[in-house]
Amino acid sequence: MRVIVLRWGHRPRDFRVTSHVALTARAFGASGIIIADVSDKTIEETLRKVVEEWGGPFSVEMGVPWRRCIKEWRDNGGVTVHLTVYGENIQTSDVMNRIRSSGRDLLILVGSRKVPSEFYKPEFSDFNVAVGNQPHSEVAALAVFLDRLFNGEELSRVFSGAKLRVFPSKHGKKILKVSA
Amino acid sequence: MRVIVLRWGHRPRDFRVTSHVALTARAFGASGIIIADVSDKTIEETLRKVVEEWGGPFSVEMGVPWRRCIKEWRDNGGVTVHLTVYGENIQTSDVMNRIRSSGRDLLILVGSRKVPSEFYKPEFSDFNVAVGNQPHSEVAALAVFLDRLFNGEELSRVFSGAKLRVFPSKHGKKILKVSA
Repeated sequence: MRVIVLRWGHRPRDFRVTSHVALTARAFGASGIIIADVSDKTIEETLRKVVEEWGGPFSVEMGVPWRRCIKEWRDNGGVTVHLTVYGENIQTSDVMNRIRSSGRDLLILVGSRKVPSEFYKPEFSDFNVAVGNQPHSEVAALAVFLDRLFNGEELSRVFSGAKLRVFPSKHGKKILKVSA
Repeated sequence: MRVIVLRWGHRPRDFRVTSHVALTARAFGASGIIIADVSDKTIEETLRKVVEEWGGPFSVEMGVPWRRCIKEWRDNGGVTVHLTVYGENIQTSDVMNRIRSSGRDLLILVGSRKVPSEFYKPEFSDFNVAVGNQPHSEVAALAVFLDRLFNGEELSRVFSGAKLRVFPSKHGKKILKVSA
């Protein structure tokens, strides 16, 4: 199952949060991120450096109009999952089972500011999923959704081409420099 | 088990990310947040409004020196958990079991920019925990740590005194206004 994150509504002042969304996507097992409608060279550069040092693969696309992105994904047989406080609760509903049993590639829609009401409709979102129905953070929602989707196994994944790897420690900081 | 989040290294330009940390702490079952060393009225106000509308209890403290905060917590019998990419992997080690079986109140240390090296030492952090050993986000790390600590049950918690509650929907936005 291929998983790509679509970040909607990025503005320059959201730089830090969008970076967190992208790094979370990578670290929690998504194959790439698309930043819809706009381009942000600083974020692109940040991600390029992380992939160069910590490994991949992880794709980064920018500026694709969000409607087209969703249409193409579905035309290719994938489904869309919109993470929103208003959706079906990931803990108390069976939504995660339904997503898993679809067996399809997932495009995960992650908003920032208020998203257009179209986002919630079946024409765009096959699933509206709430990681709890309390206001919090799209970064938190994405992390927990992916952690549950991949049963935690994403957290021990080895990335290809990494120059740096952490050697986990009880106390201290140990980094291994991997030679090519 | 009482859980409080200690946010270290907040600067005014971190406003959005610190807000996400605080809202994540609340939504994922922590009892409160302490923003170390500095005060930020805008964040305090944001959190006050969220608690007023969406319920609590959730405490907010600001400006406490971080060393004092940790010392007092431990003097009162609590343990400290530092979330860091360098720590023991939450997925592949038994660190979560050891934290749980301590049965103690937890102060969760969440950094932003590079933290002082003292942070990793046993004098300050009883446990250094990595939510995966890849760089990502303190918001993501906090969410997944708490989700695992509370076995996901935090996501169906009912908050006291809430004026607003979401009615989870497959498609659409439904909010219930709770009358007092």
